[in-house]
Amino acid sequence: MPIVDLHILEGYSPEEKQRLGRELTNAVRFVVPASPDLVTMTIHEIPAENYYRGGLKRTPAPARADPVGIVQDYLAAMEAREIETARSFLSDEFVMTFPGTAPMHHLEELIEWSKPRYKFVTKTYAGFDAMQGQDDAAIVYCRGTLQGRYLDDSPFEGIRFVDRFEIIDDKIARQDVWNDMAEVRTKP
Amino acid sequence: MPIVDLHILEGYSPEEKQRLGRELTNAVRFVVPASPDLVTMTIHEIPAENYYRGGLKRTPAPARADPVGIVQDYLAAMEAREIETARSFLSDEFVMTFPGTAPMHHLEELIEWSKPRYKFVTKTYAGFDAMQGQDDAAIVYCRGTLQGRYLDDSPFEGIRFVDRFEIIDDKIARQDVWNDMAEVRTKP
Amino acid sequence: MPIVDLHILEGYSPEEKQRLGRELTNAVRFVVPASPDLVTMTIHEIPAENYYRGGLKRTPAPARADPVGIVQDYLAAMEAREIETARSFLSDEFVMTFPGTAPMHHLEELIEWSKPRYKFVTKTYAGFDAMQGQDDAAIVYCRGTLQGRYLDDSPFEGIRFVDRFEIIDDKIARQDVWNDMAEVRTKP
Amino acid sequence: MPIVDLHILEGYSPEEKQRLGRELTNAVRFVVPASPDLVTMTIHEIPAENYYRGGLKRTPAPARADPVGIVQDYLAAMEAREIETARSFLSDEFVMTFPGTAPMHHLEELIEWSKPRYKFVTKTYAGFDAMQGQDDAAIVYCRGTLQGRYLDDSPFEGIRFVDRFEIIDDKIARQDVWNDMAEVRTKP
Amino acid sequence: MPIVDLHILEGYSPEEKQRLGRELTNAVRFVVPASPDLVTMTIHEIPAENYYRGGLKRTPAPARADPVGIVQDYLAAMEAREIETARSFLSDEFVMTFPGTAPMHHLEELIEWSKPRYKFVTKTYAGFDAMQGQDDAAIVYCRGTLQGRYLDDSPFEGIRFVDRFEIIDDKIARQDVWNDMAEVRTKP
Amino acid sequence: MPIVDLHILEGYSPEEKQRLGRELTNAVRFVVPASPDLVTMTIHEIPAENYYRGGLKRTPAPARADPVGIVQDYLAAMEAREIETARSFLSDEFVMTFPGTAPMHHLEELIEWSKPRYKFVTKTYAGFDAMQGQDDAAIVYCRGTLQGRYLDDSPFEGIRFVDRFEIIDDKIARQDVWNDMAEVRTKP
Repeated sequence: MPIVDLHILEGYSPEEKQRLGRELTNAVRFVVPASPDLVTMTIHEIPAENYYRGGLKRTPAPARADPVGIVQDYLAAMEAREIETARSFLSDEFVMTFPGTAPMHHLEELIEWSKPRYKFVTKTYAGFDAMQGQDDAAIVYCRGTLQGRYLDDSPFEGIRFVDRFEIIDDKIARQDVWNDMAEVRTKP
Repeated sequence: MPIVDLHILEGYSPEEKQRLGRELTNAVRFVVPASPDLVTMTIHEIPAENYYRGGLKRTPAPARADPVGIVQDYLAAMEAREIETARSFLSDEFVMTFPGTAPMHHLEELIEWSKPRYKFVTKTYAGFDAMQGQDDAAIVYCRGTLQGRYLDDSPFEGIRFVDRFEIIDDKIARQDVWNDMAEVRTKP
Repeated sequence: MPIVDLHILEGYSPEEKQRLGRELTNAVRFVVPASPDLVTMTIHEIPAENYYRGGLKRTPAPARADPVGIVQDYLAAMEAREIETARSFLSDEFVMTFPGTAPMHHLEELIEWSKPRYKFVTKTYAGFDAMQGQDDAAIVYCRGTLQGRYLDDSPFEGIRFVDRFEIIDDKIARQDVWNDMAEVRTKP
Repeated sequence: MPIVDLHILEGYSPEEKQRLGRELTNAVRFVVPASPDLVTMTIHEIPAENYYRGGLKRTPAPARADPVGIVQDYLAAMEAREIETARSFLSDEFVMTFPGTAPMHHLEELIEWSKPRYKFVTKTYAGFDAMQGQDDAAIVYCRGTLQGRYLDDSPFEGIRFVDRFEIIDDKIARQDVWNDMAEVRTKP
Repeated sequence: MPIVDLHILEGYSPEEKQRLGRELTNAVRFVVPASPDLVTMTIHEIPAENYYRGGLKRTPAPARADPVGIVQDYLAAMEAREIETARSFLSDEFVMTFPGTAPMHHLEELIEWSKPRYKFVTKTYAGFDAMQGQDDAAIVYCRGTLQGRYLDDSPFEGIRFVDRFEIIDDKIARQDVWNDMAEVRTKP
Repeated sequence: MPIVDLHILEGYSPEEKQRLGRELTNAVRFVVPASPDLVTMTIHEIPAENYYRGGLKRTPAPARADPVGIVQDYLAAMEAREIETARSFLSDEFVMTFPGTAPMHHLEELIEWSKPRYKFVTKTYAGFDAMQGQDDAAIVYCRGTLQGRYLDDSPFEGIRFVDRFEIIDDKIARQDVWNDMAEVRTKP
């Protein structure tokens, strides 16, 4: 025990079912401290012709894309300075806040903001945390360290960062960024 | 659809079952974008005398305390400078990292670190995000803004922060803190 | 086989569950010609604190009154000429059609219509048929024979009739009546 | 809620399962006034090699033909005066009663009865009601209006009728007919 | 996995449910070599008012007495020479076969048979094996060694035996006994 | 009732599922004296990609060979004096005890033991009883009568025997034999 049974309409991919297996197992463990090996989870796929709501057949909603994957692809595009690609991951209501900035809505604003700060920056990832929020947004955190070069070409590395993303309808609607850049810069 | 059935041993409180209801519903929605109103979740409580593993009866593991509640109580104790109380929420392996610090293991180190920085600081919370990690730790993020007074008694407020906690066996094992203090301080 | 499992929120009476047992068993047999003895039906009552839709608790809807009972009580009140009582079973949109009448909305119209036809009439019931319609109405048919006295005090009996009722929200919304009175009267 | 799970042996057609979906949903709604959209019904088809009664495999009983379809085909054959076809829908114990007739067992009796009454008659359907009876018979009601020509070639139309059928083992075992023909004929 | 769910009418004792837990777990393991710790078995007790077969309520059959217990009590009575008590465990059709005997129907026959063989004998049990047979009988084997005294008062011990019992309706209907007494006696 | 649902990973053969159907039905009947016809048992096969333990996929354990079949094949090989074949059914820890012998580990010991006793012996089977033991061993009993020829070529027949086998990991680990040979030989 605990035993979880999930009934869904037929039509999800093995990868999507694997995600359901992991998420539901973790959801149980969030409350019940069972050894993972004792949490069993079975997916029962119901063919559309065997499921009725209000006496009518229904079609399965396509699964959400993995929000972690969306974030990873977006961050990779940003590092590669493929702005068009990066923009394709954003929703129309996209808003982002970086240390010391007001809310920004366009990647161009971010680029402007970064210009007086560093030549380039890349990320080393320590981990991702992801979950469904109470509302429509999936939440993804990624954290790790930044490395790159300042405007004077001097290198930096090991600067801690954390990003928080909200993903709605498979698009990034919000990005909040914290890091130790100012802390590090102001160190004697 | 989707329909989730959770079978657990009898003995969990209404509040604990409410948490299971919320977590499992969100876990499904993390993958399947069903309207929340269409995600039904039923808990089937099995009396101990009706459940057998390997032909033997088992007893239910006590539920975990709500990790968000643990974090809230810990942060409240820190704000109130009730260090003994705050320490009671920490595991023996506790480690914390603040902007610009090396990993610290004792609250006294944190107090020393803060002395040259500010007189006091309190938090206004914008939100908590919590989930079970793949390993034993539950993860809690809290974010919001800091307000307080610098050493020269000048006030500050609206400084963004985010904390990440790992809770293992109902104790905080790790705290990572990011904020815009240095960014703000170094603004002209 | 077939095996039916019905999950409902806790709170229905034994009589209401008996009705569910009978209706669901018959619904299966309407399509699958299994011997009744092989159709098993189990009701699983879920305590409110164990059921979540969209992560929220729900309360059970009170069961409908038995539509056959409503019709029987209404017809008994009509036979006893307790018009006020009979009227209490009717919805505001009540409409009834008797042989040769236009649709009528008030029991007084029916009484006027019957005055030139018979002194009184009572019913002997041969059977009731009842089911849920596709829309909101439950449908009840009752059939049998009429007996009574014509205006000239001559008796009649054994005149076939059938009534069809629509019951919505426990109120009779429609009554349609057919019988052989004219056929019998015009017999040489 | 309510949630219905039906376990049947594999081998029923989509149309037969659709009928089960509709009938079981309505059976629940007959007692519990849930919005249709909240009544979910899942059919679990069990392969014959996975079901054992008394430790032995069983084979599924073929589904019943839709009783409404049987009645519709029978009535269409009668209107088209295809007596042989119509007769093929009747059981050996068939009995029918029309306004003013004694119970009749053969369609020829009906034809004789109608000869002095009208040249021909056709039906306009207002609706069908169908359900499983407590015993073996499925019950079908159809109602609507009659139109046609009297013996003197004068037309009639809009005469209300209702027919009640009992269907046993996919054959019509009983037909009871009520209508307003006499009422209409005797109107001044 | 495997996961067993047993649905029974409410009314069985904890000891009876424990027996069901053990028997069903072993039944699975007889075919699927899962570690016992991975075979979970849940008993779902259905209140009588929630179970319908053919639309009618049913009452649970009282559980069988544990056949091993019946055999143990019978053998204990035999050792204690409480013949009346021993006889109370036997069905009217009781038949027993001992080494070299024809089928016997009465305990008195057994006593007669043993008289020229030994003064008394008691049993040391090495184990019991029990199962349900395909027909109505439960089967119990017990095996171990015999000790006692021959007619000449010389002792014997360690003589292997095995008994097979058939229990029908909580009564012993058949006993078959094998042992090495003759083998031992004839040893030089 | 009772209704048994067994959930196993997909991949067992019809013959293996038939064995599960029989064993689980009998396991229920061992405790609840329901008519076999009222014990229904459904196997739910879960595709590997739909089952998660600890969030991870698992593979089904291959079914055990039918222990009765193993015993029958071993005994047939022994009767046919195909010692190599017979030995292939034995585990490395095999031990057997025959009337009057110490525990033996090799078939050759058995052959030596039998040489001064009979020329050959064959078995007529009256029945097999088989079950899973509490530990890893499946238990098989077979019983019936022996026939053959003594060393002096004189025939014997109808001598009762019973064998008990323990089968672990599809190999015979233990054989215990009882019979009436000595009893019969010493009869005057």
